[in-house]
Amino acid sequence: MELSFIAYLRGRCRSLPSIHLGIGDDAAAIEPTEMLQLSCTDQIIDGVDFMSSETPLSEAGYKSIAINVSDIAAMGGMPKAALVTLTLPRENSTKIAGEVYEGILEAAEKYNITIAGGDISTYDGPLAVNVCLLGEVAKEQLWRRSGAKEGDAIVLTGPVGGSLSGRHLRPQPRLDLVQILQDVVKVNAAIDISDGLSLDLDRLCASSGCGAELNIDSIPIHPDALLMAKESGRSPFQHAWSDGEDFELILTMSQHDADRLSQSHSDLGLTQIGNMVGRTGLWKKNDRKLERLPPQGYTHNSNTTDVVN
Amino acid sequence: MELSFIAYLRGRCRSLPSIHLGIGDDAAAIEPTEMLQLSCTDQIIDGVDFMSSETPLSEAGYKSIAINVSDIAAMGGMPKAALVTLTLPRENSTKIAGEVYEGILEAAEKYNITIAGGDISTYDGPLAVNVCLLGEVAKEQLWRRSGAKEGDAIVLTGPVGGSLSGRHLRPQPRLDLVQILQDVVKVNAAIDISDGLSLDLDRLCASSGCGAELNIDSIPIHPDALLMAKESGRSPFQHAWSDGEDFELILTMSQHDADRLSQSHSDLGLTQIGNMVGRTGLWKKNDRKLERLPPQGYTHNSNTTDVVN
Repeated sequence: MELSFIAYLRGRCRSLPSIHLGIGDDAAAIEPTEMLQLSCTDQIIDGVDFMSSETPLSEAGYKSIAINVSDIAAMGGMPKAALVTLTLPRENSTKIAGEVYEGILEAAEKYNITIAGGDISTYDGPLAVNVCLLGEVAKEQLWRRSGAKEGDAIVLTGPVGGSLSGRHLRPQPRLDLVQILQDVVKVNAAIDISDGLSLDLDRLCASSGCGAELNIDSIPIHPDALLMAKESGRSPFQHAWSDGEDFELILTMSQHDADRLSQSHSDLGLTQIGNMVGRTGLWKKNDRKLERLPPQGYTHNSNTTDVVN
Repeated sequence: MELSFIAYLRGRCRSLPSIHLGIGDDAAAIEPTEMLQLSCTDQIIDGVDFMSSETPLSEAGYKSIAINVSDIAAMGGMPKAALVTLTLPRENSTKIAGEVYEGILEAAEKYNITIAGGDISTYDGPLAVNVCLLGEVAKEQLWRRSGAKEGDAIVLTGPVGGSLSGRHLRPQPRLDLVQILQDVVKVNAAIDISDGLSLDLDRLCASSGCGAELNIDSIPIHPDALLMAKESGRSPFQHAWSDGEDFELILTMSQHDADRLSQSHSDLGLTQIGNMVGRTGLWKKNDRKLERLPPQGYTHNSNTTDVVN
């Protein structure tokens, strides 16, 4: 890597919000606030999470930021600063780094994120882009996976399924909804859909020690799921149920809050898909009988395990 | 990766200091303090930064934490929480992850660091261990690279050179000195030696807009440099001047503070090696004449560029 790339990067980052001490020292320093400090990390790798033969590298860069923004949104927080690690194939490394950074900087500007630091290596391997994203949230506004209560309404922020037909390359994390929701309701639990509606809902249920009773017909199916179903041999519902990388949020809140929200903010595209119940697992209401639904999703056949965040 | 590994990890992390919300949600959450929030990241890759054929993987894990601790120490701060991304070869991935984590957890316990989150992927490539380390420092105690003043004493925290003979596998970041120094003197500028004494001192000089006049004979040379010189064809001084991965600190402070420190804390193994001067560059005092010394170090022929921190 050339030092000129670092100079370019420092120049390009000048339009982003500033912090106490950014690029160019042993560590970055951010002014303290009274908020909880959020941190998460997610990596995408050529050949595993995207295909450089099909995807412009700027899109990979954009995605590396956006998927982390989704994690911060799922905590009810706002992103602030990113540390970016690029692991580059030896050949054309400077060109590749430049292309990836075009997308990283586009996403950073969109979500008002400072590039606070990072690392660049070249090696005999595929391009990997790792982002560690720092954010913040007021303590009383933190959305945990584990906070869902029996009786809570389960609210989905948008239609799901079929993202792999192209939408997954340009994730739209639902950061736009965070402040509105914080102002209007008390969200008891939240998770973003990275590995599939049912799998991520199942994780939320497990964390909360509850289950979910779903009104299956109410689940909003994305038009991409209808298109994919024509070729995949799977039903549109199956795509909505198990496809990953939708990056919508699953939220739980009191039924009272959900009712208020649907009346006052019917324009937000939110849909109640069921209620939390004491019995663990995912359940479908069927003529007053309950049918158990197995969670399905991306990690079952995956190369990626999001260990911790 | 198996889910059982995550369960193992959560169990193993119980002995580490706790934070508001750790492993198992979309992001970690840390209680706010009145301190500046520090963040840095460094990655090590098999075949680039270590050789798995020669190095136990637990050592690579230990090193991945220790080199980041060194960056936080170089800011005058204390580490707090780490996000760890493992990128694993497909074969034996669970075994490899376990071995790497042995070292990570050993270092985390030693330096009182919580594992707050992370990511694990498998792919067709070599093992890479990326750590993003969060820390903190009081605002008035932040050590920048850019704070050195003309006339400052340049103080080295220990002997340098020859770390590649083995010492580099088990870096000893000088976190032990941070609190003592904060209590006794005002450090104006600091950097850790990751790429070589002269190269990192040159960076500190460039950031501060000054130069350094060095008493070459005072530079403490590590016994490992003497040993390596016997086989390398380079002098012990050349090893001390340009070898990377020493992880000692270069500090600048007023001459008055340096004198006080050497009197009151002669047992710390600190050595003054010169003074900051207005003229940029590195200089050797030679019979009252000045001779320019070219900085040399690791990144000149390196695969790794520490872009930003």
